[in-house]
Amino acid sequence: MLLLLLLQVSICLAQTSKPAPSNIRGAQYPQITSDSRAIFKMRAPDAVKVQLDLGRKYDMTKNSEGFWEVTTDSLTEGFHYYSLIIDGVAVADPASETFYGMSRMASGIEVPFKGDDYYAVKDVPHGDIRIKRYYSEVLKSWRTFYMYTPAGYDQNTTQKYPVLYILHGGGEDQRGWATQGKTDLIIDNMVAAKKAVPMIVVMMDGNIPSRGFGEEALNTFEKELKESVIPFVEKNYRVKTDANSRALAGLSMGGMQTLGAGLKNTQMFAYLGVFSSGWWANQPDLSNPQYEYMKNNAATINKNLKQFWIAMGGKEDIAYQNCKIMLGKFDEMKIKYSYSEYPGGHAWPVWRNNLYNFAQLLFK
Amino acid sequence: MLLLLLLQVSICLAQTSKPAPSNIRGAQYPQITSDSRAIFKMRAPDAVKVQLDLGRKYDMTKNSEGFWEVTTDSLTEGFHYYSLIIDGVAVADPASETFYGMSRMASGIEVPFKGDDYYAVKDVPHGDIRIKRYYSEVLKSWRTFYMYTPAGYDQNTTQKYPVLYILHGGGEDQRGWATQGKTDLIIDNMVAAKKAVPMIVVMMDGNIPSRGFGEEALNTFEKELKESVIPFVEKNYRVKTDANSRALAGLSMGGMQTLGAGLKNTQMFAYLGVFSSGWWANQPDLSNPQYEYMKNNAATINKNLKQFWIAMGGKEDIAYQNCKIMLGKFDEMKIKYSYSEYPGGHAWPVWRNNLYNFAQLLFK
Repeated sequence: MLLLLLLQVSICLAQTSKPAPSNIRGAQYPQITSDSRAIFKMRAPDAVKVQLDLGRKYDMTKNSEGFWEVTTDSLTEGFHYYSLIIDGVAVADPASETFYGMSRMASGIEVPFKGDDYYAVKDVPHGDIRIKRYYSEVLKSWRTFYMYTPAGYDQNTTQKYPVLYILHGGGEDQRGWATQGKTDLIIDNMVAAKKAVPMIVVMMDGNIPSRGFGEEALNTFEKELKESVIPFVEKNYRVKTDANSRALAGLSMGGMQTLGAGLKNTQMFAYLGVFSSGWWANQPDLSNPQYEYMKNNAATINKNLKQFWIAMGGKEDIAYQNCKIMLGKFDEMKIKYSYSEYPGGHAWPVWRNNLYNFAQLLFK
Repeated sequence: MLLLLLLQVSICLAQTSKPAPSNIRGAQYPQITSDSRAIFKMRAPDAVKVQLDLGRKYDMTKNSEGFWEVTTDSLTEGFHYYSLIIDGVAVADPASETFYGMSRMASGIEVPFKGDDYYAVKDVPHGDIRIKRYYSEVLKSWRTFYMYTPAGYDQNTTQKYPVLYILHGGGEDQRGWATQGKTDLIIDNMVAAKKAVPMIVVMMDGNIPSRGFGEEALNTFEKELKESVIPFVEKNYRVKTDANSRALAGLSMGGMQTLGAGLKNTQMFAYLGVFSSGWWANQPDLSNPQYEYMKNNAATINKNLKQFWIAMGGKEDIAYQNCKIMLGKFDEMKIKYSYSEYPGGHAWPVWRNNLYNFAQLLFK
């Protein structure tokens, strides 16, 4: 009787799980169940220990045919990085597409959820993602940015567009917002629904070749943005060049770059978006000069910015405390900002949602 | 004395090896020596056996600190897929960029060589790589192609461009020619040197969801090319639409698709390129109807085609025998073609060179 019940449960599971949309074509596993658990299964007859690392580590168990398997707890919405750990070595899952994150090509699993309609591929006009090489005189090297041009950009050859410059996090690169972020689909859908105006989104490489992330890296980033990327974009693409037609936003490390380069240049950017970020409370060497600048320029910042939009992935976001302390300083200085939270922690599902909400406010 | 000599040899090796250009940023290994050997080194203290699979398998050896290492024999020029096999599981190297090949995200190692100047990043005008979604009525699904638009495409808004449609091999997809193939750099450099005319290159997804690769898949591919991709490109981009301004080329599986769809449609394509391919000599069911069509239409094919360009990666190419038998049939039918060989087998270094030579002949 119990056996029958177990059999039914397992049949039921089998019927309601489907390959994850992030799998490479044809890969049957990982699968997602109807209650958002993920089933991982891979063949490794000679391995001694296989684990799944989804932020939380799961031990996988081996069956008699050499397949290792595990079913996770319910996963939250959207995109999650993961690794397989095969006898101690963390590697990408051969069954998954890979994404540059955690400073390497990592696996990602996409968990469908009820509210994922805003980045679904729909029958609406679609823009292009472009990959563009440019030579940086600042960094003395060839670099690459990704860029979204909205539907109609190629046809409307006299129209100029506003630009959102958007930044990835640490251990990621210019590919992040295009792949993990689904930027093209989010903007395509919003433009079609008239929730956002057609805009160009420049996804630049925020990595600065230097040791760590300190004041020097921050200043070099600002120089790269102002002297390389923006002039290149404004020379080569049909974009509006007034401050009201420029936005700057970023997540985590990119949020700090936005705070650093954005607040010092509000004559260039009328919109700033800071996702899951905040100056480190325990690094006053880095943050104090920033606060000092803000204090001395609070009136200008408040006057110039149409949006200073700060968002956090709930209390579970690793940047939560830093952000809270930073917002306290902003309040003392009477710097105006908006603040919102969306649960999900320090992760792409939150940042997709941040882009969705922030982009609606831009260039209107 | 011997020890001293060994020490000097190892110092010498250390001085003349550099991280491969295909590594993820910051990764020190794999390295390439000045005599084109590759040194692989990775930490895996708990693994029992680690191998490197570069087509040929190498056993790696573990040192006392848990690092596994191997130095390969001299590698031939350019790009090679590889895997690490950790206790029997073939995975991508966490230190490498990944490339969709062998039906999964595989590692690739780029071996610099004296003749690699033709795909070097140079101070010349650069085109864009675009990623474009489209809905296929033929396949009833959303698909993606990659497209190269040459430098000046955005500025010269009345100019129309010829188009090369180019196809990847089995186990690859629309990303192959853009990443493994370095299509943008090859064309950028040739256009700047006036060796090739500015052209658009459409890198379509040649995978047809069906079992295997037979007549049905071939016919569906032809339908997808003619009814989905070409009309979409011609509607949305500034392209010339006469046969003399259209070329079709492909490698391996894509070469067969070019033979199949190209030869039946020489009223559409004045240029065909077939790289490392040929009808399977042991599958007359697939090839005989093709030969029959060619026999009945030899005069039209010869009249319409300005180039029927066939190339092989030397005798070591797995398609060599099939191609040779096919060319014998072409000779019997008096079908005109050009044939050339470039050593390197069934691999991307050959196909990059094929594109370089083929593109120079186009649209002149």
